Amino acid sequence: MTKVGILGGGQLGRMLLECAGQFPVETYVLENDENCPAHNLCHHFFKGDIRDFETVYSFGKKLDCITIEIEQVNVEALEKLEAEGIRVIPKPSVLKIIRNKIAQKQFYKDHDIPSPDFIITQSRAALKEHINFLPAVHKIGIGGYDGKGVQLLKSQEDITLGFDAPSVLEKMADIDKEIAIMVAVNDNGDTAIFPPVEMIFDPALNLLDYQICPATIASSVIEKATAITKRLVKKFSSPGVFAVELFVDKSGEVLVNETAPRVHNSGHHSIEAISTSQFQMVWQVLLNLPLGSTQLIQPSLMVNIVGAEGHSGPVYYRGLEKLSENPTVFVHLYGKALTKPGRKMGHVTALLNDMTNCTTTAHWIKSTLRAETNPKEK
Amino acid sequence: MTKVGILGGGQLGRMLLECAGQFPVETYVLENDENCPAHNLCHHFFKGDIRDFETVYSFGKKLDCITIEIEQVNVEALEKLEAEGIRVIPKPSVLKIIRNKIAQKQFYKDHDIPSPDFIITQSRAALKEHINFLPAVHKIGIGGYDGKGVQLLKSQEDITLGFDAPSVLEKMADIDKEIAIMVAVNDNGDTAIFPPVEMIFDPALNLLDYQICPATIASSVIEKATAITKRLVKKFSSPGVFAVELFVDKSGEVLVNETAPRVHNSGHHSIEAISTSQFQMVWQVLLNLPLGSTQLIQPSLMVNIVGAEGHSGPVYYRGLEKLSENPTVFVHLYGKALTKPGRKMGHVTALLNDMTNCTTTAHWIKSTLRAETNPKEK
Repeated sequence: MTKVGILGGGQLGRMLLECAGQFPVETYVLENDENCPAHNLCHHFFKGDIRDFETVYSFGKKLDCITIEIEQVNVEALEKLEAEGIRVIPKPSVLKIIRNKIAQKQFYKDHDIPSPDFIITQSRAALKEHINFLPAVHKIGIGGYDGKGVQLLKSQEDITLGFDAPSVLEKMADIDKEIAIMVAVNDNGDTAIFPPVEMIFDPALNLLDYQICPATIASSVIEKATAITKRLVKKFSSPGVFAVELFVDKSGEVLVNETAPRVHNSGHHSIEAISTSQFQMVWQVLLNLPLGSTQLIQPSLMVNIVGAEGHSGPVYYRGLEKLSENPTVFVHLYGKALTKPGRKMGHVTALLNDMTNCTTTAHWIKSTLRAETNPKEK
Repeated sequence: MTKVGILGGGQLGRMLLECAGQFPVETYVLENDENCPAHNLCHHFFKGDIRDFETVYSFGKKLDCITIEIEQVNVEALEKLEAEGIRVIPKPSVLKIIRNKIAQKQFYKDHDIPSPDFIITQSRAALKEHINFLPAVHKIGIGGYDGKGVQLLKSQEDITLGFDAPSVLEKMADIDKEIAIMVAVNDNGDTAIFPPVEMIFDPALNLLDYQICPATIASSVIEKATAITKRLVKKFSSPGVFAVELFVDKSGEVLVNETAPRVHNSGHHSIEAISTSQFQMVWQVLLNLPLGSTQLIQPSLMVNIVGAEGHSGPVYYRGLEKLSENPTVFVHLYGKALTKPGRKMGHVTALLNDMTNCTTTAHWIKSTLRAETNPKEK
């Protein structure tokens, strides 16, 4: 049995552990929250701060292999573990680049990876010098996660919303579509590229509504996006599973938005819709097994189930019985005891025969399965 | 969250827990062996004897619902829990019938369920009176499991191999095929019947070689087997997931061999090959959700991976990398640290385009993935 540790115990860790039974591994999780989604699915749970050097180092030194499910970890400890012969995936050198938005943008620039133009700002005050660069997106260098640490600055009036810390100010691309490509890289640098996923936004709310796979983009754009993704992960020089988020602009150009050096929300459909899921692929990379097939089994859509507005407390999944009847709909709950508005509580993947009724199906799922509280629940 | 307990922590419990993330449940396991396959996948593990009244009762009384993954449990404790309002599935009344082979056979007889003729024997000595009934299969009344407690008695000379305890002596059927049908039953008595599975025996060794789904039997036989299965579970008057093992004799008659009131080895392919797996179906029954679809996704075969001869000790899965390359092959390991000859260590399901190369594929899997020990392993 290979001893594998995961830094972080959220839903990504949970879904990694849900398929660990396919591999000869003994699993360890480090996470501060004992009620986290991954707690009950690992062999060994350690409560501790993944950002603390000593905690991560002492957790890691008893392992054969260590990986992450969130970037905000102590990279120095991972570097020391790597130097001492522990297999660290992705490499700490990549984590250092990616978890700092400034370093990440600079890396794209240095390696000719197309990405929106940017300016580095050290403080909120410095934004005043770049009024002409707006509209732009201000992204905090370190510590942003899951929508936090990102602020759209449309014009001068929005400058007060900017971050008073080292950040990047990124030119708004003239976006036609947002897509994401998952890619697995093994020790030899071989890649397995997943079919592109397309994010569908609610035009009224300007929020992610659902995502579909495959993306409905021209094959020439897919080729371009795939080539950029391959070139990017080659530059990272690290095995791992990566999620590359890309913009397709109105002229058909492809620009890298951001990269995550781990499994990602945009790859959840792969559990049902792709031969090898993003989660299985992580174990295959960690154990240096051949990369699995990324063949599309069936088109799909995926919706996040987030805590309903006006409901905070012990979760009750209203409507679950209605989804159970449908053989093409797959529910994943993250085992979080408490819901609050907007909290990611689960996701649902639907396998589709064609893409014609995507929005109807996505909205049916979202309106049917609701993460609420129920006063009658014990 | 519904608090659900499982009595037993083997691979069946493990696979139940691997898909529990699709349901709003908090999971409890009672099992004597702390190194059991299910230990690391439940919320709460309790070490204890599932055959002991007090242990089972005190485990169960804090739960909303309790089920089993093995029949050899304390039924009296389950009866008391049921009387006190805990949801017990399957009902203790069914467990009492099924876990005693004598009561099970008598139940078939009393309810006109076709099954091979039998004689009840109280001791080994009593077998002498039934020489003319041979060849027959001697099955111990209580305590048999997984091939143990079953003995073929071909002729008078074999009588010394019989059991010196209350047993059934069952007439050897003139077997053409052995099939199994999984069926889920909900609170209303509605059933969801899985497509029949066929056991393929090695003609030289007379041992189960692999199993396929769907079974290659005439549709009239399928109809007969399905009707018997439905009638049988209706007589049980209990929600649950049941595995009914049947003989098809050379005249095309269908006879019930045995029933298991739980998920079963013959349903493992359902994880990949059927819309709703046998394991998901258990949660749907426990939570009284609508029964899922049992639609066949793709024909499949399933082989058990058992500990290789001549290898006892920490397991090493030789050949795992070769199966990883194949997108139609799905490996499930049971997380057992130690292998020994014949121990069930995992299983592999292969999805097939047709049934023509079943034996070749099954033998390729069995010869490729080997549960061995490796002196170089730490």
